[in-house]
Amino acid sequence: MKSISRNIRKVSMATVGAGLLVGLTAATALAADPNGADTIKEDPTKAVNYSWTLICAFLVFFMQAGFALVEAGLARTKNTVNILSKNFMDFCIGGLAFFAFGFGLMFGGSALAPGLEIGNPIVGLSGFFLTGDAYDVGTNELWIFQMVFAATAATIVSGAMGERTKITSYMAYSFLISAIIYPIYGHWAWGGGWLATLPFGVGAKDFAGSGVVHAVGGLVALVGAWMVGPRLGKFGPDGKPRIIPGHNLAYVVLGTFILFFGWFGFNPGSTLAATDLRISVIATNTFLAGVTGAVVTMYYSLMRTGKADIGLACNGALAGLVAITAPCAYVAPWASVVIGALSSFVLLGSLWFVENMLKVDDPVGAVSVHGANGLFGLLCVGIFADGTYGGVSGLIAGNVDQLIAQLISMAAVTVWALGAGYAIFALIKATMGLRVSREEEITGLDITEHGVNAYPPDEVVVADGVPVSTPVGSARGVALV
Amino acid sequence: MKSISRNIRKVSMATVGAGLLVGLTAATALAADPNGADTIKEDPTKAVNYSWTLICAFLVFFMQAGFALVEAGLARTKNTVNILSKNFMDFCIGGLAFFAFGFGLMFGGSALAPGLEIGNPIVGLSGFFLTGDAYDVGTNELWIFQMVFAATAATIVSGAMGERTKITSYMAYSFLISAIIYPIYGHWAWGGGWLATLPFGVGAKDFAGSGVVHAVGGLVALVGAWMVGPRLGKFGPDGKPRIIPGHNLAYVVLGTFILFFGWFGFNPGSTLAATDLRISVIATNTFLAGVTGAVVTMYYSLMRTGKADIGLACNGALAGLVAITAPCAYVAPWASVVIGALSSFVLLGSLWFVENMLKVDDPVGAVSVHGANGLFGLLCVGIFADGTYGGVSGLIAGNVDQLIAQLISMAAVTVWALGAGYAIFALIKATMGLRVSREEEITGLDITEHGVNAYPPDEVVVADGVPVSTPVGSARGVALV
Amino acid sequence: MKSISRNIRKVSMATVGAGLLVGLTAATALAADPNGADTIKEDPTKAVNYSWTLICAFLVFFMQAGFALVEAGLARTKNTVNILSKNFMDFCIGGLAFFAFGFGLMFGGSALAPGLEIGNPIVGLSGFFLTGDAYDVGTNELWIFQMVFAATAATIVSGAMGERTKITSYMAYSFLISAIIYPIYGHWAWGGGWLATLPFGVGAKDFAGSGVVHAVGGLVALVGAWMVGPRLGKFGPDGKPRIIPGHNLAYVVLGTFILFFGWFGFNPGSTLAATDLRISVIATNTFLAGVTGAVVTMYYSLMRTGKADIGLACNGALAGLVAITAPCAYVAPWASVVIGALSSFVLLGSLWFVENMLKVDDPVGAVSVHGANGLFGLLCVGIFADGTYGGVSGLIAGNVDQLIAQLISMAAVTVWALGAGYAIFALIKATMGLRVSREEEITGLDITEHGVNAYPPDEVVVADGVPVSTPVGSARGVALV
Repeated sequence: MKSISRNIRKVSMATVGAGLLVGLTAATALAADPNGADTIKEDPTKAVNYSWTLICAFLVFFMQAGFALVEAGLARTKNTVNILSKNFMDFCIGGLAFFAFGFGLMFGGSALAPGLEIGNPIVGLSGFFLTGDAYDVGTNELWIFQMVFAATAATIVSGAMGERTKITSYMAYSFLISAIIYPIYGHWAWGGGWLATLPFGVGAKDFAGSGVVHAVGGLVALVGAWMVGPRLGKFGPDGKPRIIPGHNLAYVVLGTFILFFGWFGFNPGSTLAATDLRISVIATNTFLAGVTGAVVTMYYSLMRTGKADIGLACNGALAGLVAITAPCAYVAPWASVVIGALSSFVLLGSLWFVENMLKVDDPVGAVSVHGANGLFGLLCVGIFADGTYGGVSGLIAGNVDQLIAQLISMAAVTVWALGAGYAIFALIKATMGLRVSREEEITGLDITEHGVNAYPPDEVVVADGVPVSTPVGSARGVALV
Repeated sequence: MKSISRNIRKVSMATVGAGLLVGLTAATALAADPNGADTIKEDPTKAVNYSWTLICAFLVFFMQAGFALVEAGLARTKNTVNILSKNFMDFCIGGLAFFAFGFGLMFGGSALAPGLEIGNPIVGLSGFFLTGDAYDVGTNELWIFQMVFAATAATIVSGAMGERTKITSYMAYSFLISAIIYPIYGHWAWGGGWLATLPFGVGAKDFAGSGVVHAVGGLVALVGAWMVGPRLGKFGPDGKPRIIPGHNLAYVVLGTFILFFGWFGFNPGSTLAATDLRISVIATNTFLAGVTGAVVTMYYSLMRTGKADIGLACNGALAGLVAITAPCAYVAPWASVVIGALSSFVLLGSLWFVENMLKVDDPVGAVSVHGANGLFGLLCVGIFADGTYGGVSGLIAGNVDQLIAQLISMAAVTVWALGAGYAIFALIKATMGLRVSREEEITGLDITEHGVNAYPPDEVVVADGVPVSTPVGSARGVALV
Repeated sequence: MKSISRNIRKVSMATVGAGLLVGLTAATALAADPNGADTIKEDPTKAVNYSWTLICAFLVFFMQAGFALVEAGLARTKNTVNILSKNFMDFCIGGLAFFAFGFGLMFGGSALAPGLEIGNPIVGLSGFFLTGDAYDVGTNELWIFQMVFAATAATIVSGAMGERTKITSYMAYSFLISAIIYPIYGHWAWGGGWLATLPFGVGAKDFAGSGVVHAVGGLVALVGAWMVGPRLGKFGPDGKPRIIPGHNLAYVVLGTFILFFGWFGFNPGSTLAATDLRISVIATNTFLAGVTGAVVTMYYSLMRTGKADIGLACNGALAGLVAITAPCAYVAPWASVVIGALSSFVLLGSLWFVENMLKVDDPVGAVSVHGANGLFGLLCVGIFADGTYGGVSGLIAGNVDQLIAQLISMAAVTVWALGAGYAIFALIKATMGLRVSREEEITGLDITEHGVNAYPPDEVVVADGVPVSTPVGSARGVALV
């Protein structure tokens, strides 16, 4: 970390220099306004648009808590602190990585705000560290909104690799996905890159990130879960998967509620403007796809097993939410119900395929929820877009072109996320190692990696006639100072 | 469910046809604008008003998590998954029911937005499925806000019927309350119906739904809890109630915090406009009534028992919040303190009455918190409205008329909610049955209805020398695909 | 409590009378507008500014849940209900205290809104009970935002005094800090008092309350924890501190996520205006300081012990958030990273100092997170303010003056919070007593003060052949009516 930090300035200067050679995109540079007084004078609607965008960003931030709870609930007690730590640290480390590198690689050349002038269709090359002209209210508004999206992509992976991955390796991964993997595809789709300007339809469209956030996260999760290998005992000697239940379904349900709540920031907020009143339709669509995903999945489980599987229904809701994320602005409410219903079958099919065909152990279903349905969401734009918004028309509006752009985008994200994911996990495996030892895994990662239990009993040791302490670990680190 | 879905289109067409015969309300039809560009051009303040309304709707949505936690905390461990599942599924199913039927029955004829032109003072008859002219940004804005209110009413019932009601029956109930019961009274009060135009005061007033949401939910809960019967062992052979403690008070407190948080969307958001600056007074009133309800209840418990009963204090806060919901816009801050204090006694009296006189078993106190205080809130409008807002003046402003309108509204909601509640539960009881068997209830609904425990222990079964699985159930449904 | 309530009116009248003698501040009185129609007509930007401020206030309110969870997680099982009750009741009681006394003492004389005309540089003397001209939309907007800040300061103390303080005494403390201690220093800094007009720099600056909220809360917590004494067994016979682990790390992480989420209301909301576009930079700065605090602390724990201490990392995030709270509007993003990194060392140093030098037992680290870093945040304004906003320039902009104002402010808050904190705890100790008995502490406060367990087992007692009840306590108070 230290050498990285020391070299950050040098690297960013070098990158900018390289960018100048590779090619410039933006023509006019906007003047930086770190105070905001000039910006609001020029355009008074910025007040409501900043307010909207920031509050939505805060809601998206809160999704981190939802991911943490869902993943902790689906983990065993002995790995609870570990999965919570990963979920907490990935947005922290990812935040710094996106500040230093990711944002510049993603939005450089987009000219969406001051300081983002340099870049080319493949990669952005300006805006690093939010310095220079990027110290501007508009650039910072864009940054905080994009930051919480990057953090969402990063945190999807933790659950799929849960219960056996080293925390230090996971933290290194967090840095790399937020600094490099997420931003590059993000640049192609949202930062002025080549996908947005494809000569089919209006170019590939991904309104709020089924592809940019969820497919990237879910596909990197697939690579990670495959490379770290299944948990001990997950597959029997006959290769058949066994069920390993998580330790707290209340966390799973609460986490899903939080994720659903945050999604209302994720999708409607992606207009970056409240003056765009389509936000109300987007909110409705988001709601309908999510609830339909849950209802279809729940009745499927009831019909199939006679039991109401709430864990699966939660994943059904999330599947619907992921699938509607790309098309949410382009489709009508009825189509959201259809998309939500279909997302449930995409989820169920993918869960079966990943576990039984690929023999990959994904303890939380992240690959199916985010990866499969992320791709499906990109596809839905090409099918269900009705032409009422942004000029995007899909099959139901009699237009085939848009579907082609979407298919190219799906191919691009698949190749990039699997390839780049493989590269970083191979790098980490070769240097730090990915997986804890067999003994550590059996003991549980909480004790071996963190020195604590998630739920220490009140008292075990008696001192001076008073019960005071447990023999193992500490819930806080005072003693170590 | 399937036949219902199949017939939805037919039914809605038939209903619209009937509506044309029964009578039309609205004169001019608004033009539908699914894109929003025309709407914002006509009225630029829509940006801040949509933004405000949507964010408040998101906060109200999050109250679902609060209800789930409060009810799960007050349930026993063995029924935790069940109560969480009910809270999760009721907003999902209710959402689809409100999309298909409820919204049209409630707001048809209100002419509040495009596509809502047809209806009469008794029932709305347009806007079903958000199709046609209802595919409009304004109609969708209204829909999402009203949707989360409908979901709140629906979820109030789950706790009162907790720990003994079949999940499939509860899901059928969710559909019916959101499709029919909630919308009909809602139409009378908010959708252009007869209560709003009563010739007393300015007509019956219920600013944010003490009556529409809470009294409806609480009174249907009373019918439901009575019809499903008390939990085994709740009443002794002498008819005296016994205490059956819930399993997690931390959930109860966290859930109450979430509900209080969401109430700031519920009440101030009900202006549907940030240009109406009364929102600040509404927020203050909401806060003050809630905290006063908690403080009075807490000191009552301390004086009466010497113990600080936090579960009761949480219900005290909720009682204050429910009571202020109708009058929140019409009263001054000092009156909110008075209303909050009185709500505590309404709560305590009702808890005693329901359990000892009616012999109804309401494990969470929903009937008293939402039903009794919902009615009390309607009454408070007629007493404490000071005339500073909306022309609503109550007794303290020397006006008796408004009180008459409020009393009529209280009578209407009581008759409707008890009657319609009885009808749907009788229907469900006759067809699907309401209650699990004695054996299932003793075992707990988590195992019998869901096949899982809420908190599975880490390991019980050892395979290939590695501990892998518990013998009972799964925290997710991968295996069932 | 009763006599207090009875005398409230009298006291407030007397105080206003005294104020008139002491000296008036404000010149022109604004006209009260309880309806809001005149206010919006005069200034249409109020819509977006009220909307922004209120939603941010709601987010800050939600931080109460975060504090409750962090503190409950760091407490032992046997004291869980107690710490949750304190966190719940302090904002309720503090809310009423701030309504009655605090707001008037803090903002009287500020003339920030109608009804706040009377006051002097030492103390405010108008606005009590929000009556008279203070029944105004602007005054209520200010009130609700300031109220949730006051509640934050109050709740900081509960954790530091956790696991041994009587609940009734804690509730008395809640009243006094919100009625008197918090508002007086608040008046000096934000309510038109002497600190804001110091003849150094632009006067002492504390943008969102590192000093007003966190240093006050953290320093009162230090006094409280010192006066109530350490928990039994915390220090061995040799005076060395022992670790007493909390009972649920998942609560700690979830609580920290909620606090971080709420901080986005705390800091950016403190502009009280969305027309001030600096809000985007403030959000970015808040995020960066928080994540850097976590990352530095986490890697410190890894290097020092080989274990990843998530509890400490959570406190690291909070330390960064506290430290950035005062300077958040005045500094550039890069400086936020530096401040966040330094805050981690302030935290670690203070944790060591409080426990090993002062021998004070602070179970949650509140003194170090809020007290030490609150002071540090005030200091950072004088160092890192870059002059781009509000005319505030620190050392890095070549200005020493501002640093002097900040040092005076740090001295003032230290003297006031320690002194006034000592006075109220001495008063409570002398009258009601502060601490539970040795026996009660060993048994746990949940049973002795609340008569319940946090997590009652499902069944112990069998009646009529059906298991129904636990022998101890109730999760709700129905039976006591």
